Amino acid sequence: MRLTKSVIAAVIGLAVVSGSLAYADSMTDAIKYRKSMMEVTGYNFKLMAAMVKKEMPFDKAQFAKMAETVHYMSTLTADGFPKGSDEMAGPTHAKDDVWSKPEEFKKDMVAFQKSSEALVVAAKTGDMSVIGPKFKDTAGSCKKCHDGFRSKSE
Amino acid sequence: MRLTKSVIAAVIGLAVVSGSLAYADSMTDAIKYRKSMMEVTGYNFKLMAAMVKKEMPFDKAQFAKMAETVHYMSTLTADGFPKGSDEMAGPTHAKDDVWSKPEEFKKDMVAFQKSSEALVVAAKTGDMSVIGPKFKDTAGSCKKCHDGFRSKSE
Repeated sequence: MRLTKSVIAAVIGLAVVSGSLAYADSMTDAIKYRKSMMEVTGYNFKLMAAMVKKEMPFDKAQFAKMAETVHYMSTLTADGFPKGSDEMAGPTHAKDDVWSKPEEFKKDMVAFQKSSEALVVAAKTGDMSVIGPKFKDTAGSCKKCHDGFRSKSE
Repeated sequence: MRLTKSVIAAVIGLAVVSGSLAYADSMTDAIKYRKSMMEVTGYNFKLMAAMVKKEMPFDKAQFAKMAETVHYMSTLTADGFPKGSDEMAGPTHAKDDVWSKPEEFKKDMVAFQKSSEALVVAAKTGDMSVIGPKFKDTAGSCKKCHDGFRSKSE
């Protein structure tokens, strides 16, 4: 999580350099950023789910790319939650626990990175009996974090 | 662009399998998807710009990761423009030229991929005199496509 800390430090650094108005802007930007990352993740996830459920034809190369994209996003997600980007900064589903329980939040972020990394490896086999369980694990890691750190209302 | 075509074909395939209502949904989803990708790209771009302009301290590792993210997004961007995801499907800045001039649009997408790839290579040097021009080229490739294919109103 070194890079994440670095990015967060930089965002705060930018805010300090540019003044308090810029700080408010950067926190609002961070909220938009994480929502966009969730959207990119979700779009790819939805299409993978359709393939897993046989609602659309399985395409090995496409599935592999989507798994890779979800994993790539997992390495960025924590960057979207700098301290200060809470409900005071704009409409957000993020609970205050994101910042008051940073170790637990970090644990869920790492679980997402690991589960999606395993999905990338599984996707390369092109074998749905291998992919299925890893897809389920990844979905589970999304759900765990959403259950713990995402409120239903903004 | 093989993968892009594959993804677009799959999205359309999903729509055909699931019926016309799902088709409309998938086109609306595609619009949201591309907007999110632009947002993710833009966020990283903005922070890189702040470093290039010395508005925030240059951090080699962070800059390199942001360049990598922008390049990664460049490999996905075209997936957000399946045929049918035009203004009939939802509010969008995308001009009809995206679909009526596919070769020109593809050319701009490839230019974005190439310029951002060069930025990734430059970022590894940590030398702003090398990075600056490649950052400018990447910004130029964004602008060229926006000027040609993005209308100012939705």
